Amino acid sequence: MSSLQGEPKGSPSAFKPPYQTIRWRASKFSVLDQRQLPLKKTYMELPDIKTACLAIKTLAVRGAPLIGIVAAFAVAHAARKHATHKKLLQAIDQLSQTRPTAVNLFVCLNHMREIVEQDGSPVQIVRQALDILEIEETRSYAMAAHGQKLIAKEMKVGTYCNTGALAAPGLGTALGILIKAHLSGKKIEVVVPETRPLLQGARLTAWELSQYKIPYRLVTESALAGIVGELDAVFVGADRIAANGDTANKVGTFGLAIFCRQFGVPFYVVAPTSTIDSNLSEGSQIPIEERSPDEVLSFGSCRTAPAKSKVYNPAFDVTPSDFITAIVTEKGIARPPYNWTGEK
Amino acid sequence: MSSLQGEPKGSPSAFKPPYQTIRWRASKFSVLDQRQLPLKKTYMELPDIKTACLAIKTLAVRGAPLIGIVAAFAVAHAARKHATHKKLLQAIDQLSQTRPTAVNLFVCLNHMREIVEQDGSPVQIVRQALDILEIEETRSYAMAAHGQKLIAKEMKVGTYCNTGALAAPGLGTALGILIKAHLSGKKIEVVVPETRPLLQGARLTAWELSQYKIPYRLVTESALAGIVGELDAVFVGADRIAANGDTANKVGTFGLAIFCRQFGVPFYVVAPTSTIDSNLSEGSQIPIEERSPDEVLSFGSCRTAPAKSKVYNPAFDVTPSDFITAIVTEKGIARPPYNWTGEK
Repeated sequence: MSSLQGEPKGSPSAFKPPYQTIRWRASKFSVLDQRQLPLKKTYMELPDIKTACLAIKTLAVRGAPLIGIVAAFAVAHAARKHATHKKLLQAIDQLSQTRPTAVNLFVCLNHMREIVEQDGSPVQIVRQALDILEIEETRSYAMAAHGQKLIAKEMKVGTYCNTGALAAPGLGTALGILIKAHLSGKKIEVVVPETRPLLQGARLTAWELSQYKIPYRLVTESALAGIVGELDAVFVGADRIAANGDTANKVGTFGLAIFCRQFGVPFYVVAPTSTIDSNLSEGSQIPIEERSPDEVLSFGSCRTAPAKSKVYNPAFDVTPSDFITAIVTEKGIARPPYNWTGEK
Repeated sequence: MSSLQGEPKGSPSAFKPPYQTIRWRASKFSVLDQRQLPLKKTYMELPDIKTACLAIKTLAVRGAPLIGIVAAFAVAHAARKHATHKKLLQAIDQLSQTRPTAVNLFVCLNHMREIVEQDGSPVQIVRQALDILEIEETRSYAMAAHGQKLIAKEMKVGTYCNTGALAAPGLGTALGILIKAHLSGKKIEVVVPETRPLLQGARLTAWELSQYKIPYRLVTESALAGIVGELDAVFVGADRIAANGDTANKVGTFGLAIFCRQFGVPFYVVAPTSTIDSNLSEGSQIPIEERSPDEVLSFGSCRTAPAKSKVYNPAFDVTPSDFITAIVTEKGIARPPYNWTGEK
């Protein structure tokens, strides 16, 4: 039975986050419900594929690497509950239709499909999910280590959306670099944009930074142009990176990159190689999810705009590679021109 | 008594907005409470100076020209209720301490101070307020007329915050140009940024455009970089313009101007000459109001970020004049280099 639970390795315990994003227990699989943060720290059980799909679609779990991991564990959980191979393949199809932009979801599900199609046993299928988690954790710590070359003592840095342990295994991606810098005594200060419409910066990044006691200032996106010039560097994550380095990330990233160019501030993208889609030559080929107008028309239970307003609400935007100073992966720091054609 | 009420002239009735922002009645002075829009259209009575100050501070009324007008009428209302000249001068001081950035407030209050200091009768003091209103109304219609040269049929235009009849007498400033273009059959489409933190775009501009049935799309500021390239022009208002054309306006304006430069989109500022402060040689001298962190930390009754978060919440930013394609005033269209030194 222990091989159906497993325990990921490779995470230097000194840097382990003080909260668990995924709980993989003897018979239960649950995730920290990020919609409730920072007000409540509650776990949402994902007993079946339908609930797992809902959790991903409604952003109870989000972050490109994390949704890949959660999808893999949803398949593993179904396998250990003796789903047939046919059901498992259906599950993989359902999970792959939850969100279109982050490529990690498809990469992880393809790994799961391979083991299912090889008639893998429940133990082997669970092992596959645990292996994926372990690899992504190791990548997170490697990115955090490489990124230290880009961050000096007492730097004032910016970030965007949420890219910590709530978004990716280990320490996360971009935020992992900042967390490691702080834990190494670099005394950084972070500027956190709230990230409309769903406020992942205000709700999640501010919360994660407060868990580590990292000093930060929260700002609206409307205040960014006035503050980017004070920053030494900006670190963001990615949902999909094309072969030429064009990067899809949370909507607002491109605007932040334009401000960085305007004020001469280095703009770094941080993502594991599982976020690179070498099949796409450039960013215009990345499918961009458009989400419900309700996210913009109302706030919680309070409507904030005329109900019939037409809304444009893309969840992501694409930052052209020439706005990106460097891309940090687990392999090191890549600088332009980027060329990941045929990488995988 | 009629001279204590008055009726402003100069507003071509075909273009009159389908709602009243200010109600100046026989014995009552009230304003449309903009905090309740778009959900409720309620009027807030301003029986005394304390309430008028509160209405301005809490943004029940806002918009650079409008707060000047409301302050002037608050003084006139006190005068017709037989306040002493000493009380009226105190009232002017109190009103001038409500908000620091928009210069129109001080310009209007100076006009009121003049008539009070000349021992003006209640009738004369009321007449002064009505004159100020009439002048600003006339300016609004003149700006709307001049601006038509900048706007062609079927243009897709952007704006920011709220600059319509809720922000200034007549048709407003920037939005007045768009409203007149629509009423003249130009079939424009407007992109409306929601304008965090207080959502004047989502709550007020979307509502005003819907009153005129002008097609619009609402976007978050985070989505702006992805859509500005599609626009033919952007029109914004101003809270204070320095002699060199540097313009303080709602926070987020500078970011929008940077995007306009990036994508080669003309960026127009629209304001009456009462918004020009020729005493200030450049924008860095404009005092920028910083507002409560609560505006960013919570939304309505719902907290959205850790309560102890440090917040940077300026209400305005300054767009350097070299980002501004032209400035439309009631006198015409000014182009760089701007030089309003010693104008007034």
